[in-house]
Amino acid sequence: MDDKTFRVRCEAYRAAAEDYLDRLFTADAPWKTLYDAMRYSVLSGGKRIRPVLTLECARLCGLADWRAALPFACALELVHTYSLIHDDLPCMDNDELRRGKPTNHVVYGETMATLAGDALQPEAFRLIAEAEGLSDRAKLNAVRALARASGADGMVAGQVLDLTGYGHDRESLTTLCDRKTCAMIRAAAELGCAAAEADAETTETLGRYASLLGLAFQIRDDMLDVVGDEATFGKPIGSDAEEGKITFADLLGAEGCAREVRRLTDEAVAVVAGADTDGFLAALAVGLAGRNS
Amino acid sequence: MDDKTFRVRCEAYRAAAEDYLDRLFTADAPWKTLYDAMRYSVLSGGKRIRPVLTLECARLCGLADWRAALPFACALELVHTYSLIHDDLPCMDNDELRRGKPTNHVVYGETMATLAGDALQPEAFRLIAEAEGLSDRAKLNAVRALARASGADGMVAGQVLDLTGYGHDRESLTTLCDRKTCAMIRAAAELGCAAAEADAETTETLGRYASLLGLAFQIRDDMLDVVGDEATFGKPIGSDAEEGKITFADLLGAEGCAREVRRLTDEAVAVVAGADTDGFLAALAVGLAGRNS
Repeated sequence: MDDKTFRVRCEAYRAAAEDYLDRLFTADAPWKTLYDAMRYSVLSGGKRIRPVLTLECARLCGLADWRAALPFACALELVHTYSLIHDDLPCMDNDELRRGKPTNHVVYGETMATLAGDALQPEAFRLIAEAEGLSDRAKLNAVRALARASGADGMVAGQVLDLTGYGHDRESLTTLCDRKTCAMIRAAAELGCAAAEADAETTETLGRYASLLGLAFQIRDDMLDVVGDEATFGKPIGSDAEEGKITFADLLGAEGCAREVRRLTDEAVAVVAGADTDGFLAALAVGLAGRNS
Repeated sequence: MDDKTFRVRCEAYRAAAEDYLDRLFTADAPWKTLYDAMRYSVLSGGKRIRPVLTLECARLCGLADWRAALPFACALELVHTYSLIHDDLPCMDNDELRRGKPTNHVVYGETMATLAGDALQPEAFRLIAEAEGLSDRAKLNAVRALARASGADGMVAGQVLDLTGYGHDRESLTTLCDRKTCAMIRAAAELGCAAAEADAETTETLGRYASLLGLAFQIRDDMLDVVGDEATFGKPIGSDAEEGKITFADLLGAEGCAREVRRLTDEAVAVVAGADTDGFLAALAVGLAGRNS
């Protein structure tokens, strides 16, 4: 797929997800401050890689109009957003900046930030359950995939491993990353497959592609935390080292990271070759491997 | 229904829910400390009113074996438990005791308590999605009911109203209680109806009964916070006043509260009279109205 075609489609997905998210939590209510806190983080930019992945997988698996998968795509983005809000809390990573903006609790206070994160989780499942034009089976598969990816054996398990210093060598760090990062990126692909009622084999293939993408993404992230440009990267360089965390950059070095990102990207592209009919997923993987932000 | 029959059935529901909950999060995993923190609060006693309500509604609406509704009943209990863990956090009510035991963050630390609460939410939706022997339609109705009750217009909205001092007169305090307490108790009934695929009218009737029960429950709670016995009640008497919260006890007085609890209980019993074939729900309402703990 040529670069322009890729960019146009990617931007169509991104803009549709942005627009969908922007329509949420806008009602007038006595608890409007909760909506404001939720919207602050939901709409604070971000690359929207997960929604793009959901929407492309839905399209690729034959959903007549990929827009029907927007509630699934945005549900997962809400869960991703809650995890960022809670990760930044003083009792977690205690970060004051995210994507160059003050974190949620800096703006709304710790109490409201905790509640905004708490509310985003059920709202995600509500979006799935209330999605129009998709079958009960599709919705239930989506609920299951999202719940597993974000639950006690998924993203939260990864967060616990991260905070308890579990990752100390390549194997343990890969386990940590599988749970903390890859599970949700894989679920993004699975939700697209669920929307299109793809068969188990296709879902497995696209899920595997997404897992590899997730691992490459994390390794690139660790590398940028060492050799990146702060203004482009959007967060302070060297923050991992400051927090005393062992990362892929420590274990592999900057060059080793770059090599591993290339290897994983090649593998992701190869895994998906049969399904990725016009090369969008290959272009996405290659694009992410070269990102600086 | 005579008292003994009521107690035997109530205990059967309670024991089944307890047993189901006790089988969760027991695997051996590198993030076992997360499981421990989750189980600490999930299994810390409690009256299990919500599961009892779900299971009785499922039975009443014709589910062949009420045990099939256990995943729904316990899903709601997980969400209820997460809300207690997060409510007790230093950035919320900052409580150190719950049901006479140290709160989750006192035992596991603030970070792990936050994460335990976070993980309980998706696990609840997973239980619903993976429930055996129930239809896709039943599960989706359950997901929708639970998500609405616990989301940004449900329980979390009520929590925000509570923390921002919204409740200052009878009307505003009732709105607050509707969101914070009644929504989840109503959802407990709705999940039982969903499991049995009850019609909309029956679901509405049982939901209305549960809402009235919830309001009576809260008013009784406010009253016990003023005139209760600390050892029986399981939390310090006068804590509402200490936190500067206006409660139904302030607005109605102890006698006015008792009168209102009786009125709401009578109304709940009347609402459900046609559906409550053997009087279990009436006995439950009357029993809760007289509780001291």
